[in-house]
Amino acid sequence: MNIAIVGAGALGLYYGALLQRGGHDVRFLLRRDYEAITSTGIRVYSINGDFVLPEVSGFRRPEEIGVVDLVVIGLKTWANDQYAALVGPLVGTGTKILTLQNGLGNEEQLADLFGAARIYGGVAYLGANRGAPGTVHHLAAGRIILGAMLAEHTRDATQLAELFSAAGVTCTAVTDIARARWEKLVWNIPFNGLCALVQRPVDVLLAHAGTQELVLKIMREVIAAANAQELTEPIPLEYADELLEFTRAMPTSYRPSMQIDRAEGRPLELEALIARPLAAGRARGVEMPLTAALSALLDLP
Amino acid sequence: MNIAIVGAGALGLYYGALLQRGGHDVRFLLRRDYEAITSTGIRVYSINGDFVLPEVSGFRRPEEIGVVDLVVIGLKTWANDQYAALVGPLVGTGTKILTLQNGLGNEEQLADLFGAARIYGGVAYLGANRGAPGTVHHLAAGRIILGAMLAEHTRDATQLAELFSAAGVTCTAVTDIARARWEKLVWNIPFNGLCALVQRPVDVLLAHAGTQELVLKIMREVIAAANAQELTEPIPLEYADELLEFTRAMPTSYRPSMQIDRAEGRPLELEALIARPLAAGRARGVEMPLTAALSALLDLP
Repeated sequence: MNIAIVGAGALGLYYGALLQRGGHDVRFLLRRDYEAITSTGIRVYSINGDFVLPEVSGFRRPEEIGVVDLVVIGLKTWANDQYAALVGPLVGTGTKILTLQNGLGNEEQLADLFGAARIYGGVAYLGANRGAPGTVHHLAAGRIILGAMLAEHTRDATQLAELFSAAGVTCTAVTDIARARWEKLVWNIPFNGLCALVQRPVDVLLAHAGTQELVLKIMREVIAAANAQELTEPIPLEYADELLEFTRAMPTSYRPSMQIDRAEGRPLELEALIARPLAAGRARGVEMPLTAALSALLDLP
Repeated sequence: MNIAIVGAGALGLYYGALLQRGGHDVRFLLRRDYEAITSTGIRVYSINGDFVLPEVSGFRRPEEIGVVDLVVIGLKTWANDQYAALVGPLVGTGTKILTLQNGLGNEEQLADLFGAARIYGGVAYLGANRGAPGTVHHLAAGRIILGAMLAEHTRDATQLAELFSAAGVTCTAVTDIARARWEKLVWNIPFNGLCALVQRPVDVLLAHAGTQELVLKIMREVIAAANAQELTEPIPLEYADELLEFTRAMPTSYRPSMQIDRAEGRPLELEALIARPLAAGRARGVEMPLTAALSALLDLP
C-alpha cells in the first residue's frame, strides 16, 4: 500500500518506520529531518528492539508525493490550518485519511476539506521523542485505537487496524472514536497541561500528594465532561485510578509532548487538547474549574 | 523611642528608615546589607521623594542591640523558627513586638514565646524591593493596618499607629487584626501565588481574560474562608473587584515578593501565605480547590 506520513515528528517517524518495515511503500513529508533521512535513513531506538531503515523516501513538498492510498497525519494540531496545502495533493478518489493527532476537532476539520467518508481518527498511546535528525526514541507503549468517522465504514476501520497490527503495532478498531479520544484526554489534560506548566516530568507530579490529588481532580472533571457527550458508554470514574497506575509504570522522568514543546519554545496544542474539551464540557453544562485554570495559565503570553 | 528592626529586607529597611527619619533611635539587625549600611547608610528611592540616612545603627547580632521599646519584625515567615534567637535578646519587661510579616500564624508563634500581651500584628500594603546593598526602592502604596493581639491593648495599638503616622506612614489601628490579615490574603494568595507560579507580573495576569477570572475565583475562595472565621464583620464579595481596581493602578510589571523569591531561588512563604489559610478554611468546612491546586503546584520540589 502507498502511505504518506504528514507531520514526521516522533509519532510520524515511528509509525511510518514500522509500516515501511512491514512492507509498505511509505513516503515521508519532511522538513527538519529531510537532509538526514534522505541521506542516511531512519534509526529507531525502541524498547521493542532498535532498527534502522537505510533507504527512506523523503519529500519536501506533498505534490512530489502525489496521490496515495492512505495518509497518516501526525502534525501538531496548531498546524491544522495547513491541512489543505499539505494533505490536499495526496488525496485521490480512494484515499483514506487517518489522523493520529491529539485532542478534539481534527476529524471534523479534515471532513470539512475532504469529506467525512474518508476520515478515520486514531488515538495513539505512544511515548516517543525525536532525537538527532533522522532518529526517534520509542520509550513506552505504542498502542493505537482507531475508528471511522462514519459508522458505515467500521469494516474499513478494522482493515486499517489490521494493517497496523501486521506491522507490529498493537491496534484495535472501535465504533466510537469520540469515546477513545475522550479517554486519552483524561490522561492528556492533566499530565500534558500540568507538566508543561511546571516543567516537571510525570513522576514528580505523582510523587507529591498535593499534585497527585490535583491530577485526579482534573481527570474527574474530564470524565464528567466526556460523559455528558452521549458516548456509546460512559467512562467510569475508576478509569482515573487505572491511568494513575499506567502512569506509574512509565519510564522515570517521562516528559509529555507539551512539556517538551514548551521547554523548546514551540507553540502548544492548547486548542485541541484543552480549549475544545473545555468548550465541549461547558456546552453540555459541565463546569471544569481546574481545567479552565490550567488552560488560562498555559495560555498566558 | 528605641526601635529594633528584625528582618531588614525591603519592608524592614523602608519602615525603619522612615522611623529613624522621624526622630527615633532605630537599630537594624542586618545580614546581607551590614557592610553597606554601617559604612554609607540607607538610601531610599521612593515615589514620595528620595532620601538618604547617612548614619545608621547596624548590628550583626541581637545581643549587641539589647532591650528596646519596640521590635518591628519584617522577617520572611519561613525564618520564624529563629524568633527566639533573633527577638529574645531584644525583649524586656515593657517591650512591644509588632510583626509586619505576611500571612497567618505569626502573632501566635510570637505569643507562644513572649506572651500575647506584648504582641501586635500589622498588615503592610507596601510595594518595595531591595536594590543594591543599602538601598530600597519604594514603588507603591505603604499603608499599615495594625492591631493588638489582645483586645484590652487596643489603646496601645492606637499609640503604635500614631507613632507610624508621625513618621509619615499612613497607619490605622483596628480591633480585629485577623480580619485585616484575611483582607490582605485576598490579594496575596492569587497574586503572590500565581505570579510566582508562572513568573509573570501582576499586569500580565490582569491583561488575560482567563487568568483575571482565575484571580477573581481564588479571591472568592479566600473571602469564603475568611468569612467562616468569625471575623468582626464579613468581607464583602465586592472586595475582590476593589482589589482588581487597586492592582490595575499599581506600577507596570509589578512583581509580588513571592515571584521575586522564586526567581532568585529563595524559599517561598507558602506555609504562612497559602497553607495556613487553606487549613483554616478547611477547618471551618470551606473547600478551596483552586487555592489547593496553587499550593500543591508551588510546593513541588
